[in-house]
Amino acid sequence: MRNFEEKTIASETIFSGKVVHLQVDEVRLPDGRTAKREIVKHPGAVAVLAITEEKKLVLVRQYRKPLEKTILEIPAGKLEAGEEPSACAARELEEETGYRAKGLSHVVSFYTSPGFADELLHIYQADGLAKGQGNPDQDEFVELVECTLEECMEHIQNGDIMDAKTVAAVYLWQNQVLSGR
Amino acid sequence: MRNFEEKTIASETIFSGKVVHLQVDEVRLPDGRTAKREIVKHPGAVAVLAITEEKKLVLVRQYRKPLEKTILEIPAGKLEAGEEPSACAARELEEETGYRAKGLSHVVSFYTSPGFADELLHIYQADGLAKGQGNPDQDEFVELVECTLEECMEHIQNGDIMDAKTVAAVYLWQNQVLSGR
Repeated sequence: MRNFEEKTIASETIFSGKVVHLQVDEVRLPDGRTAKREIVKHPGAVAVLAITEEKKLVLVRQYRKPLEKTILEIPAGKLEAGEEPSACAARELEEETGYRAKGLSHVVSFYTSPGFADELLHIYQADGLAKGQGNPDQDEFVELVECTLEECMEHIQNGDIMDAKTVAAVYLWQNQVLSGR
Repeated sequence: MRNFEEKTIASETIFSGKVVHLQVDEVRLPDGRTAKREIVKHPGAVAVLAITEEKKLVLVRQYRKPLEKTILEIPAGKLEAGEEPSACAARELEEETGYRAKGLSHVVSFYTSPGFADELLHIYQADGLAKGQGNPDQDEFVELVECTLEECMEHIQNGDIMDAKTVAAVYLWQNQVLSGR
């Protein structure tokens, strides 16, 4: 395995916000030349794959300003400082949908955009769902939607489901169904 | 369906770089209050799900500065201005791996991080692969790796495959195998 590491020569902070931090690093490439890397730092996030007893996926309809669109996503949220991902998953599921899970197991973690951002997203699978009372964040406006696997596949086709974590979660669910789990 | 649209009151450009553009928008929420939205603009990208005749997935090992890690990903790249996604997919596949595809069909598109970025990623599936000569970009250092589905699942478990597009592509491939396509 060859070593392609890029050593940091200099790092300039451009912006430190509530959600993202932007920096531009100057790096030494493996061949000795230098290059600039624009890097967005993000606290990381969790998302929850929750299937109801009726074999429906728990989704939220939410407006996303960067897209200027309302899309269907699995419940998700940013990690707060020092927060355990599984605790964050339980909190976001209940806040956004009113569902509580008896158990939450980690299924996969991935970087959403490794070319320019360090956001790491952890997907948890809920089991033993029970309905409580939703309590969305002050500046969050979300609507609960529940869909069968077939409806989810249609939503992917027609672009109502259109984000990486939800597409990955639906494919994962489809795999579980196809392999009889 | 309720309307959660957030109207832009003001928009401030923080940074315009080679890859990303950062702006902070002030928005009017559905309940009349205002909030700030940190938004990363990105040109969009394509990625290629390419399976060889030996039933192996074509991957590239690549150092990602935002993660300070070398990971395995399906071939991918940013869209150039005005470039057709399918043309970009063909170009990136050949540049990074040396493979040429007889055909490329669109399978799914998703936003990688809808909470803070507008990056839209298009996944194409290649068919009729033939090996030519790789020609990586000047500041790109990549190594070709080919893995069976079983090996890909292990790489997801051990964190060698750890980005959204590649995880989604492996799950999609697994679905195709499970359903006999």
